[in-house]
Amino acid sequence: MRFDVLTLFPEMINEACSHSIMKRALDSDVIEVNAITPRDYTLDKHKKVDDTPYGGGAGMVLMAQPYVDAYESIEKQDNSITLMMTPQGETFDNNMGRKLAKYDQIIILCGHYEGFDERIRDIIQPKEVSIGDFVLTGGELPALCVIDSVSRKLDGTLGKQESMEYDSFEDGLLEYPQYTKPREYRGLEVPEVLLNGNHALINEYRKEQQLIRTKQRRPDLYEKYIKDTKD
Amino acid sequence: MRFDVLTLFPEMINEACSHSIMKRALDSDVIEVNAITPRDYTLDKHKKVDDTPYGGGAGMVLMAQPYVDAYESIEKQDNSITLMMTPQGETFDNNMGRKLAKYDQIIILCGHYEGFDERIRDIIQPKEVSIGDFVLTGGELPALCVIDSVSRKLDGTLGKQESMEYDSFEDGLLEYPQYTKPREYRGLEVPEVLLNGNHALINEYRKEQQLIRTKQRRPDLYEKYIKDTKD
Repeated sequence: MRFDVLTLFPEMINEACSHSIMKRALDSDVIEVNAITPRDYTLDKHKKVDDTPYGGGAGMVLMAQPYVDAYESIEKQDNSITLMMTPQGETFDNNMGRKLAKYDQIIILCGHYEGFDERIRDIIQPKEVSIGDFVLTGGELPALCVIDSVSRKLDGTLGKQESMEYDSFEDGLLEYPQYTKPREYRGLEVPEVLLNGNHALINEYRKEQQLIRTKQRRPDLYEKYIKDTKD
Repeated sequence: MRFDVLTLFPEMINEACSHSIMKRALDSDVIEVNAITPRDYTLDKHKKVDDTPYGGGAGMVLMAQPYVDAYESIEKQDNSITLMMTPQGETFDNNMGRKLAKYDQIIILCGHYEGFDERIRDIIQPKEVSIGDFVLTGGELPALCVIDSVSRKLDGTLGKQESMEYDSFEDGLLEYPQYTKPREYRGLEVPEVLLNGNHALINEYRKEQQLIRTKQRRPDLYEKYIKDTKD
């Protein structure tokens, strides 16, 4: 999977990809991440990439020319999708991540400041994606969330020891509680059932915990799970 | 505002805070970000911070001792809140951000791998926060989203030129389209109304665009807005 990220802060993308499982996915060529800055494509003599908004108002707006030219410089693969990270987009979730993992190339446009000149949307016509109902300084953190979450779904990113099978949302429920050594810590003990090696009982306990936890914390997911299980 | 972030990847926090508006907020002492790693607090002779899960299963679980001891090493301020970043938490949004901005200190626990030993939750009793229904390798990106989003709400983070007043969600609606120079780009023109300097008309146009866009893209927000406006 190749990720091409258009951003005014390419170091932020590169640095964040140099840790932990993203680094491993890069090192093993499961993913490739290419950060491109529209600054390299501006035709403005002062190298500007933003300017004040028409009609007045606070902040700076990203100019169309550097973004569109930078976008058009990217070599498109056949099975490619272009995303624009913006609070106005469709909310990213585990299902969208699963669909995105089927592409060979994901191009991601990161906004900054007050956002994109509307003509960037008109010309590129990206799929607009939001990670939630909150505003950030730029699209870099959301882009990194998409890269991380999608990468986890690709063969070879997670080691044999890990598995996304147990991740929250994979079966529509939140994860069960986890315990590791020691058996007792500050008077708190690991539940007996996890120590007896009876895998049928352990699975039953964990499923029950998932249901309790999901019902309590996320009644919306719980309802959906019950409905889907009935169908 | 002081942020104390417990993480196995402190560089990831520090690097991401060294760009753009987060850097400016740090430089001007509006925020302080302190990344602490539980690795420095483990009593394990091999410096381990994680171990296999009781009851079997994939992945590694974060051990209670290093996390709890690292947490207890943090100097608590009076007006302090502790968050745990986990997909099992309450979903972060602009409203939660507004409430968090009233604290003097936010301590953030970042998970990694398969998650926290349940006794970390039992002992610290953090507010559990999720940025969305997807799974990431660690809590670092979500923690950075919270830091960025909350910082924007603090006096002095945004310059005089910027304003969060126009951000999506601040008035319950998505943002209106923005345009900057040139007036024409690839045959696409800036809407006439933005060029005539009539601010009453401009405001009317922008409000209308916000309503159209929100209704189209986020009927849930639109319904809520209409209901709240009627009340």
